[in-house]
Amino acid sequence: MPSDKLAVELYDTTLRDGTQAEGFILSPEDKLKVARFLDRLGVAYIEGGWPGSNPRDQEFFSRAGELALKNSQLVAFGSTHHASRTPENDPNLAALIAAPVDICALVGKSWGRHVSAQLKIPLEQNLEIARNSVAHMRANGRRVFFDAEHFFDGLAEDPDYTMAVLGAAVEGGAEALVLCDTNGGSLPAWITEGVAKVKAAFPEVTIGIHCHNDGDLATANTLAAVAAGARQVQGTTGGMGERCGNADLTAIAPALELKMGYACLPPDHLRRLTETARYIREQANQPPLSFAPYVGISAFSHKGGLHISAVEKDPSLYEHVNPEAVGNARRYLLSDLAGRAALLKKMADWGYELAPDDPRLKELLDELKERENEGFAYEAAEASLELLVNRRLSGRPSRFFDLLGFRVADYKQAEHTPPQAEATVRVRVEGVEEHTAALGDGPVNALDRAIRKALCRFYPTLNTVRLEDYKVRVLAGSAGTEARVRVLVESGDGENRWGTVGVSFDVLEASWQALGDGIRYKLFKMMQG
Amino acid sequence: MPSDKLAVELYDTTLRDGTQAEGFILSPEDKLKVARFLDRLGVAYIEGGWPGSNPRDQEFFSRAGELALKNSQLVAFGSTHHASRTPENDPNLAALIAAPVDICALVGKSWGRHVSAQLKIPLEQNLEIARNSVAHMRANGRRVFFDAEHFFDGLAEDPDYTMAVLGAAVEGGAEALVLCDTNGGSLPAWITEGVAKVKAAFPEVTIGIHCHNDGDLATANTLAAVAAGARQVQGTTGGMGERCGNADLTAIAPALELKMGYACLPPDHLRRLTETARYIREQANQPPLSFAPYVGISAFSHKGGLHISAVEKDPSLYEHVNPEAVGNARRYLLSDLAGRAALLKKMADWGYELAPDDPRLKELLDELKERENEGFAYEAAEASLELLVNRRLSGRPSRFFDLLGFRVADYKQAEHTPPQAEATVRVRVEGVEEHTAALGDGPVNALDRAIRKALCRFYPTLNTVRLEDYKVRVLAGSAGTEARVRVLVESGDGENRWGTVGVSFDVLEASWQALGDGIRYKLFKMMQG
Repeated sequence: MPSDKLAVELYDTTLRDGTQAEGFILSPEDKLKVARFLDRLGVAYIEGGWPGSNPRDQEFFSRAGELALKNSQLVAFGSTHHASRTPENDPNLAALIAAPVDICALVGKSWGRHVSAQLKIPLEQNLEIARNSVAHMRANGRRVFFDAEHFFDGLAEDPDYTMAVLGAAVEGGAEALVLCDTNGGSLPAWITEGVAKVKAAFPEVTIGIHCHNDGDLATANTLAAVAAGARQVQGTTGGMGERCGNADLTAIAPALELKMGYACLPPDHLRRLTETARYIREQANQPPLSFAPYVGISAFSHKGGLHISAVEKDPSLYEHVNPEAVGNARRYLLSDLAGRAALLKKMADWGYELAPDDPRLKELLDELKERENEGFAYEAAEASLELLVNRRLSGRPSRFFDLLGFRVADYKQAEHTPPQAEATVRVRVEGVEEHTAALGDGPVNALDRAIRKALCRFYPTLNTVRLEDYKVRVLAGSAGTEARVRVLVESGDGENRWGTVGVSFDVLEASWQALGDGIRYKLFKMMQG
Repeated sequence: MPSDKLAVELYDTTLRDGTQAEGFILSPEDKLKVARFLDRLGVAYIEGGWPGSNPRDQEFFSRAGELALKNSQLVAFGSTHHASRTPENDPNLAALIAAPVDICALVGKSWGRHVSAQLKIPLEQNLEIARNSVAHMRANGRRVFFDAEHFFDGLAEDPDYTMAVLGAAVEGGAEALVLCDTNGGSLPAWITEGVAKVKAAFPEVTIGIHCHNDGDLATANTLAAVAAGARQVQGTTGGMGERCGNADLTAIAPALELKMGYACLPPDHLRRLTETARYIREQANQPPLSFAPYVGISAFSHKGGLHISAVEKDPSLYEHVNPEAVGNARRYLLSDLAGRAALLKKMADWGYELAPDDPRLKELLDELKERENEGFAYEAAEASLELLVNRRLSGRPSRFFDLLGFRVADYKQAEHTPPQAEATVRVRVEGVEEHTAALGDGPVNALDRAIRKALCRFYPTLNTVRLEDYKVRVLAGSAGTEARVRVLVESGDGENRWGTVGVSFDVLEASWQALGDGIRYKLFKMMQG
């Protein structure tokens, strides 16, 4: 990493500690894909897993040769040897030695209370375990990073013992001491103090930091550690991890590079951050990172006319960094506060260049305002907006089909019998009226199936379109079921996703509108090429 | 707040800045409900909205008298007067004066670049605007908190001018200077320095802090400000807000109280934090806070046998604070004992005294766990929970009626004709089978009307029951319309309101369950009372 900036190495543990998050599950195949993306991003180390702990991680390491990493080095994680074993006959250390990696991370207990309460061995024995485990891995040709579990809790309760554990690891030959805030509750000032103490005691050793987010302070704690001298930063790309998650490298890397003057990725690689974070979520079938700092979909979203016109003039007025620096993009939201500036900007993106005094702009704004009063919301339904703009501004609007009518019946015959839903729909396509019927898991699903059945004959490309998400919101909450409902539908075709909206006092009618727009948008984009 | 600890006042802006979050929408009715919960939690100030900016906020303030707040004071938000106006003829200040509150928050620009680029007025004129706007509100009997927009950016670029804006606000009579990190990009060290500077310059004035989370540092920045002398903390309960959100009071309050030794809520009120945060999300139909520090569902989740046995022996081994301190609960992801204490507590409130080793408690917990796995959520549906407990523990459970079956048909005959919904239901009451039919505005409304029609003959008191709110959420978002849906219904009889829940793959079946519980609960309470 040629640079005159101070270097901080990023150590990504998405594939190991990240998978401790509730609901975050990666197959060995997924892990290989994620590792390739992390290498492309350019983190220094990728912790691939714990080969001694489960077959999935073992399979991952056995296939690690497929990766051909360019920027990153693969690390295998394991524990110091079991108290009833020696380093030579410990199966966990043997699995580490079998892993095809040059570096291993060895975790050992550094809080005396844990040694007594959980391992139930004398404190002195734990020092030997640390020393001998590290030395054994060194003797087998491995570089060793020593993860000091519960370091900050230990330091607060019994600093002499905790520092003695670090000393044992260094004697064994550890090249880095990774200070872990395992329970995630430390305040930044405690981190600063701990790192400074270790730096003074072991000036020759690299200090690493491994934080958890139980106090919503993992980013701040990590940055505090770097400011105090840590040069290896552990975290996950997206912040996934046990309980409230691990330190999030997507918030830490930009702060280090853009605000604190460190280099932690190869030059110009920071702009790969957003796509990497989103790709990893997608692999694990997790909801997208809406509000995440730097990489979230909302991170550079602007609402309100005045606000938007200011950002157009000078983005720094309302943005702490340039979104392009992290590979994200500015968005203008069309809320009911939105002005013409936002709409003009969006229309230009879609290829409609209108003069600000074009009377059609005023008509369109009036129509949007009226529809927003009725409950339409285009923030999460830009595809519906684009179709509306096309209908109003194009000489030959793209309709593709007309929805003529539906009949939905849902019949529950007995108390413990699930209901059965059937839908029939009438659709006109290219002058032909189609009338189809379908059963479904509930009325909306039946309606969706019947519409697709009617249209797929004419437009086979629709076979690729899936309904990805479906949300219902009752508007004006105080009027109960007589109120209007807004349905938001997200559709996808494997490559793209798009949102559409429908509003009605009838949830099926609203779904009908949103489902229709979702299909129409796919055809519209296909026509555009 | 009698305490020997230093006091920090919490200022909740969920109802104003929180609603700037993408997709976070509250009706005036929702806002009243949230305000009641915030008052119950015990924040010092509730910022209700911006009465000059939109009719929704105006309606909220016009109904503020209904709130009868016990712990909190309501604050109205507004801007300093427009450059083309005087304080006397500025409609925004007039709307503030019309709001029935003692305190207002006035936001003014404190970054010279904004004054020049956005307001396009001389820097000196902006000082007069700040001074005169504050003075005008003081002359009208209001206490004034001055929100210094972009304070930290201004301080970095042109500290003299930024401090001069604060000086003008103090001259006008502001009692608090709220330092805003509007773009959300400051590092904690910058915050510390800024607060110290203001404290030295204006030792008599309360310093407030208002952070945004664009750098994932809003919690750390807020805590740094308090450590440097700030005594009013602004944020939202759950962290909702523009772009990446506002500072999250659910992370800040526990850190202040449990780790830093400040008092920011009435004694023992911190344990109301989790239910408050969850209630607010539920009101806004937002996904639950899974990984949120302190209040998230996963925040105190433990995986793996060894880990769990250690926590059982000594929770501090793997928990940074006691989950009960914030009203959350420990969860074991393998052998689930979740909510045992909470359930016992609730059951005692309802008059069921069970010994902790009563086998019925275990059965009930097992059933609840199973239902929660299916998607039932009882946080906003305690009436359904109370009915369930009654069914399991009472010798003579109160069923009142059985729902036997329904048939719902929804028919849209032509493209521009609204659909027509008809429901028939079969209900058994006191041995009699009722079979009724009703039309409705949409299928759910038709179903609701048909059920009431069948039951009101037997239970005339049901004529007072209204459906107050109705919410639908699709669970497990990736499966589209085939996924399960959860329906939450809120019913009311003019005096009380209660929530019930239903879950099914079919939205009408789920509505059927929730509507049935809503009616049953009214009858149950009538029998008890």
